[in-house]
Amino acid sequence: MAKVPVGILGATGMVGQWFARCLEDHPWFEIRALAASERSAGRVYGELVRWNADGEMPAAVRRLPVHPVDPGVFSDLGVRVLFSALPADQALVAERALADKGFWVFSNAAAFRMDRLTPILIPEVNAGHIRLVERQPSRKASGGFIVTNANCTTTGLAVALRPLQDLFGIRSVVMSSYQALSGAGYPGVASMDITGNVLPHIQKEEEKVELETKKILGVLAPGGAVRPAAFDVVASCCRVAVRYGHLETVLVGLGKDFDEGRAREALGGFRWELSGRLPTAPRRPVIVRDEPDRPQPRLDCDAGSPERARGMAVTVGRLRKAGRRLRFYLLSHNTVRGAAGASVLNAEYAKKLGYIG
Amino acid sequence: MAKVPVGILGATGMVGQWFARCLEDHPWFEIRALAASERSAGRVYGELVRWNADGEMPAAVRRLPVHPVDPGVFSDLGVRVLFSALPADQALVAERALADKGFWVFSNAAAFRMDRLTPILIPEVNAGHIRLVERQPSRKASGGFIVTNANCTTTGLAVALRPLQDLFGIRSVVMSSYQALSGAGYPGVASMDITGNVLPHIQKEEEKVELETKKILGVLAPGGAVRPAAFDVVASCCRVAVRYGHLETVLVGLGKDFDEGRAREALGGFRWELSGRLPTAPRRPVIVRDEPDRPQPRLDCDAGSPERARGMAVTVGRLRKAGRRLRFYLLSHNTVRGAAGASVLNAEYAKKLGYIG
Amino acid sequence: MAKVPVGILGATGMVGQWFARCLEDHPWFEIRALAASERSAGRVYGELVRWNADGEMPAAVRRLPVHPVDPGVFSDLGVRVLFSALPADQALVAERALADKGFWVFSNAAAFRMDRLTPILIPEVNAGHIRLVERQPSRKASGGFIVTNANCTTTGLAVALRPLQDLFGIRSVVMSSYQALSGAGYPGVASMDITGNVLPHIQKEEEKVELETKKILGVLAPGGAVRPAAFDVVASCCRVAVRYGHLETVLVGLGKDFDEGRAREALGGFRWELSGRLPTAPRRPVIVRDEPDRPQPRLDCDAGSPERARGMAVTVGRLRKAGRRLRFYLLSHNTVRGAAGASVLNAEYAKKLGYIG
Amino acid sequence: MAKVPVGILGATGMVGQWFARCLEDHPWFEIRALAASERSAGRVYGELVRWNADGEMPAAVRRLPVHPVDPGVFSDLGVRVLFSALPADQALVAERALADKGFWVFSNAAAFRMDRLTPILIPEVNAGHIRLVERQPSRKASGGFIVTNANCTTTGLAVALRPLQDLFGIRSVVMSSYQALSGAGYPGVASMDITGNVLPHIQKEEEKVELETKKILGVLAPGGAVRPAAFDVVASCCRVAVRYGHLETVLVGLGKDFDEGRAREALGGFRWELSGRLPTAPRRPVIVRDEPDRPQPRLDCDAGSPERARGMAVTVGRLRKAGRRLRFYLLSHNTVRGAAGASVLNAEYAKKLGYIG
Repeated sequence: MAKVPVGILGATGMVGQWFARCLEDHPWFEIRALAASERSAGRVYGELVRWNADGEMPAAVRRLPVHPVDPGVFSDLGVRVLFSALPADQALVAERALADKGFWVFSNAAAFRMDRLTPILIPEVNAGHIRLVERQPSRKASGGFIVTNANCTTTGLAVALRPLQDLFGIRSVVMSSYQALSGAGYPGVASMDITGNVLPHIQKEEEKVELETKKILGVLAPGGAVRPAAFDVVASCCRVAVRYGHLETVLVGLGKDFDEGRAREALGGFRWELSGRLPTAPRRPVIVRDEPDRPQPRLDCDAGSPERARGMAVTVGRLRKAGRRLRFYLLSHNTVRGAAGASVLNAEYAKKLGYIG
Repeated sequence: MAKVPVGILGATGMVGQWFARCLEDHPWFEIRALAASERSAGRVYGELVRWNADGEMPAAVRRLPVHPVDPGVFSDLGVRVLFSALPADQALVAERALADKGFWVFSNAAAFRMDRLTPILIPEVNAGHIRLVERQPSRKASGGFIVTNANCTTTGLAVALRPLQDLFGIRSVVMSSYQALSGAGYPGVASMDITGNVLPHIQKEEEKVELETKKILGVLAPGGAVRPAAFDVVASCCRVAVRYGHLETVLVGLGKDFDEGRAREALGGFRWELSGRLPTAPRRPVIVRDEPDRPQPRLDCDAGSPERARGMAVTVGRLRKAGRRLRFYLLSHNTVRGAAGASVLNAEYAKKLGYIG
Repeated sequence: MAKVPVGILGATGMVGQWFARCLEDHPWFEIRALAASERSAGRVYGELVRWNADGEMPAAVRRLPVHPVDPGVFSDLGVRVLFSALPADQALVAERALADKGFWVFSNAAAFRMDRLTPILIPEVNAGHIRLVERQPSRKASGGFIVTNANCTTTGLAVALRPLQDLFGIRSVVMSSYQALSGAGYPGVASMDITGNVLPHIQKEEEKVELETKKILGVLAPGGAVRPAAFDVVASCCRVAVRYGHLETVLVGLGKDFDEGRAREALGGFRWELSGRLPTAPRRPVIVRDEPDRPQPRLDCDAGSPERARGMAVTVGRLRKAGRRLRFYLLSHNTVRGAAGASVLNAEYAKKLGYIG
Repeated sequence: MAKVPVGILGATGMVGQWFARCLEDHPWFEIRALAASERSAGRVYGELVRWNADGEMPAAVRRLPVHPVDPGVFSDLGVRVLFSALPADQALVAERALADKGFWVFSNAAAFRMDRLTPILIPEVNAGHIRLVERQPSRKASGGFIVTNANCTTTGLAVALRPLQDLFGIRSVVMSSYQALSGAGYPGVASMDITGNVLPHIQKEEEKVELETKKILGVLAPGGAVRPAAFDVVASCCRVAVRYGHLETVLVGLGKDFDEGRAREALGGFRWELSGRLPTAPRRPVIVRDEPDRPQPRLDCDAGSPERARGMAVTVGRLRKAGRRLRFYLLSHNTVRGAAGASVLNAEYAKKLGYIG
C-alpha cells in the first residue's frame, strides 16, 4: 500500500518537531511537505531547525525544504493531509482557507476547537464526533475539513473521564496541574523565572481545559452541534521545572455511589474498539499504577505500547474514594498524547473510516 | 524586661535550625538550651551542625553546647519554655514527659496535634483554643502543657479560610499543593528523584491537612474538646523542586452566594486583634496580590512585615468566583509560617496571656 | 552634601535593574534619569519593567519615566554621570556620542573595553588605569569620558590574581567557569535548554576573559596605552542552572616557587588603599574559606561587607599548591561584582579623585 | 554457544543496577547471581530495589533472589565471573578473598585500582595491561584475578588522551568537571544542597583522576608493574544538577607542535582493533562534534553505536589549539562508560582473550 503523503504546518516549532517525530517511519503516512512562516521558507529543515524534540532529528525531514503555508505548493507536492502546529492566530486564517480548498487539516491549534462545526476529537473518548466534519461548509464544497485535537492538559483528563462518565455519570471535576516546560514551546519559559520556582499562571490554559473537556465529553446531537456535558470543571494550571509530562491531581464528583475497586477496573480496563489496532492507538489508553508514588513525569511520561504508541497512554495513580467523589493523580505526555500524537491518531482514524486518502 | 530563657528540642534538624533563626535577637526570648539526640549531645552547635536555614548561623547559638533531651538539664539552665522540632515518634514520649514535669512545650511535631486536649494553635485563626491547655492533666499537676502548631501545608490554608468561614461559612475545601524540598528536612528528598520531576506523594501529608484543618477551624466546646468544623477537605500533596514556600491551589465551597470583591476584601482586610502587635505577628496575615502570575514561591515566600514577621504572611492571588465557590492560589513559607515561626508566635501569645514567663 | 544626579542607560534589562538596586539609597548618587530603547521610552518604569533583580523594585525608580537615550534629556535633567547597561552594538554608538558631549559614562558594555584609550577599571586591581581617560579625545574636548567595568567572569578572577601577581608573578592562568543564568539577561537562557543540563558555550565569553584579564593586569605605560600582562589565559565557560554567582576553577602558574600558606595570606589579606572606604568597596576584596565545600553559588554569592558592599567580595576556597601552580575555586556575584556594582564602585572612585561631580 | 553465568556484587545500588542494565540480553553473559549486604540478602530483587537506572527493571533480575556476598553461593550457582559494585571498604576485603578462591572479578570499586598488580583496564586505551593479572598471586594459586575499571570521571578523559599521547606525546593535563548526580549513588546528593547550586567538592575524586589517568596511560614494564605516564594532571571536580553524563573541560599540553585538523582526525578517527567487534565496544570510541554548543549532558550522554554500545562513546567538542596545547570539552556517560559498561567491556575482552569462560 502506498503511503499517504502529508504536510506539517508550523513545522519548525516545538509541536511541529513532534509531528515530525510521531510521523517518523509511520506505516501509513509519509512526510512530503514542511511549511512554516515566510521567514523560514526557502531554507532546508535540517539547517534551519534547532531540534528540541528529544533524540535526533528524523532523517526523513532533515533534507526537506521548508515552504510557506501555500495551498499551491501542497497541491504540487501531492499533499492533501495537513497536520497543523500553527500559532492560534495564524491557524484561524490559514486552516479555514486550506479546508476551503479541499485540504484535510488535523490541527493542534486552539483556533477552531470551540467552533460549533469542528470536532475536538479524541478517538478513545468521542470517536463519533468525527461526523461533525460532514457539516462543515468546506466539506460539501471541496471535501476539505478541520479536525482538532484537544489542549495538552485537557487530553489526558478527558481520556480518564470517559469510562467514569459511562459507568457512573460525572457531576463535577476539580483539577490542578503541574505542567511541563515543553508545553510553552521554545524558547518558552525563561530559566530565570522557573529555576527553583513554580509559575501559577499559564495564559488561557484553565479556560481551555474547562470548556474543551465539556465539549469532548458532550453528545453530538443528530443534525446539530455538540451539546456539552453538563458537569462543571474547575482547573488550576501551574508550570513546573519538568521537560515533558503534565501531571494532574483530579477530583471527580460522580453521579452515584460507587465502589473504589470498580472505578479502578473501569479505568484500567477501559478500551476503545480500535485500541491497539491503529498504529498510534495504545493498547491500554489508561494505565493504573498501584505504587504510592506514581505517576511521576520522569518515569511515566512515555507510557504506552506498542512502541509506536509510546507516550500515548495516560497513567493514573493514587486512586481513592472520597464519598461520592473519586480522587486520583494523572499523567500524560503533553507533546505526544496532548499534541502531535493526538492529531496523528485522529488522522489514522479518519483514514480508517475513509475520510481521507 | 529580662528575656525569657528558652530551649530548642531537635535543634540540629531543619526545623530546629529555623527555630534558632526565628528566635535570633528576639525581644522576649533568649535561647539558652539546645537539645538533640544522644548522638549529637556533648558537642558544640556550631561545630556539629551543617547550617541549612539560609544566611549564616546566628552567633547566639554557634557556641552553645548541645544537650540530650533531659528535663534536669533544662531546669539547671533555668529554662521552662521549650520549642520542639523533634521527630513525631520521639515527640510522643518526650513532650508528654516534659509537660508532666512542668515545662511549657510549643511543638512543631505531629504527635499531639490530634490529641483531644491539645490545641493546634494559630492565633489569627483560633486564639481561643489556647484555653484547651487548662484541661491537660499536666497543667493541673505541674503547670506544664503542650501547644502544637499545624502542619506546614495546613497553616497557610487555615489562615486564609478563617475570614471566609466567618463571613460566608465553608462547605468544602479542595486543595492541591506544590511543596518545597525543605519540608522534607535534611537530607530529605534525593536529588536523583526530584531533578526535572514532581513527586506525587508525601507521607501522611494529605491526611494531616484534611484532619488538622477541621480541628483548627472547629469550635472549642465549653468544658470539652474541639468540635471539628463540619466541612469536607480533600488535599492532594506533591513535592516540587523549590527550596522554600508551599504553593497551593484552593477551591472553597461557601455557605451562601457571595460577591468576589467582598471575598477579596475579607482576605486582604483580615486582621486578628494582635496582628502586628506581637513580635512575630504580621500586620497583615493575608496579602492579596492582583498580578496574574502571583504568588510564586521564589518571590512571595518571605512576605510579611515588620521585619521580624517576614515569612509569616500568607500570600493569596488569582482570586476568582466559580458559582458558590471561591478559587485562589496561596503561598506560605513552610519553615517559618508553617513551622518554627508558628510556634514562636504561639509562645508570644501564651506569654501575652500570662500562660508562661 | 547634595547627591550627584545620575542616569541609567538600558535601565530595563537585567543589568539595568541591578544598577537601580546598587544605586538604591546610595549616599553619593541619586537616580534621576532612566533611559532605554525607543520602544520603552515614554512609559513609567514601574509599569514597564518585569522586575528580575531580586527583592522589590526600589521605590525611587518605580515612578520615574523612561526616556530614550538622548543627551538633551539628560542635560535637561541635570544629569552628567551615566551608568550604561546598553547592548554592545548600541553602546558602540551611543557611549562615544555621549562622551563626546561631555557625559561621564561608566559602562558595563563590552563595546569599548578593548579600546586602547578606554580603561577596564577594577579599583582594587588597577586603580591607576583610570588615568587613561585623560587621553580620550572627548575628555579634552568636552570633559566627557568612558570607563568600563570588566566582563562578569573576568572580574572576580582579576581581583584574585592581583595579589598573586604582585607577590609571585603570574606565568599562566587556566580557568573553567560554572556561570549563572542571570549573566544571559532576561529572558536569556531557555528553560528547555538548561533544565537538567549544562551548556558548554557562551557567546564570546572565553575570548573576553582571555583578553580582558591581561589588559586589566597590564601596565599603563606613561603617555601610552595599557601594555597587557605577559601571561597566558585559557578560559572555558559553561552555563549551569544557577540564578546568581559565577563559580570558577582556577589554576595559576606562578613566576617562582611559593609557600601555600603565604598564598592564602596574600589572598585573604589583600586590601586596596580604599577598601571599605568607598560606599561600595568591600572591606575585604577576597574572602578565603577553609571549608572543603566552599565557595558555593547559593551560599557565597552575596559575600561582602559592609551591607552596601554585599555581593562585592570575591570568595576563594579549596586553595592548594600544585608545584609552582596555585589551584583554587572562586566565586563572585555576576551582576553585582561583575556588572552593576563594579561600575558604581568605579564612579565612586572617579568622584573621590575629582573626575566627576 | 551457552552464555557464561555471571554475578553482580552490590547489585542493589546505583552501579549495581546499571550492571543489570548493561548485562540485559547480553549475547555472551547471563546474570545468575545477585549479591548485596547481609541486610538485603534473602529478599527478591524486584521487591527490594527501588529502580533508579532509567527505564524498567530488566525482567531477568526481577525475580532473582538477593544473596549475601558468599563464594559458596556463587559456586553452587555455577558462577565464576563477578561484576563488583561494592563500596570501596567492602571491596577491599571481599574482592581479594573472591579472587583467592578462583573468581574472576571485574570491579568498579576503587579499592584495588592503585594496587601494583591490578590493572585499571580500558581496552581502547591500555588493552595490554590485562596481562598484569598474570602476576596476581591468586591467578597462580586458583586462577582468580581482579580487573578494575577506572573512576567515572577518569574514563572518558583517558579514552580521549590515548590518540593524543600516541601521536603528539602529552606533557600536562588540566581538567575541570561538571559531574552528574548519579555519580554519587542513591540517595546521594541532597536536593536541598544542589537545587540552583553547584557543589565544588566530591570526596577523593580529584585525587583519583590525577593518579588513575597516569597509571592507565602508563607502560606495563616487562615482568613488572605499570610505570605511570610522566605527564602531570590537575583535576577540579564539581557536582551539578544533571542526572547522567559527566562533562569536562580539558586542556592538554602536547609534546610537540601540532595541527588542529590533525588532532581532530586523531580523536574522531581513533579506533582500537576490536572497536565495534565486542558487544559493548562502540564502533567509534570518540565522537567529535563540530557544533559550537556540544557536547551537552542531556543530548550526548547516550552516544555510541551499535545499540548495545549506547553510552559507551565519548563525545568531544569545541576542539581548539592554544599554542602547544589542545583544548576541548568532553562528555561521557558516568554509569555506563564510566562504571558498569566499562567492566562489562573488560569482561568481554577477557573472554575474547581466553582469560575467562
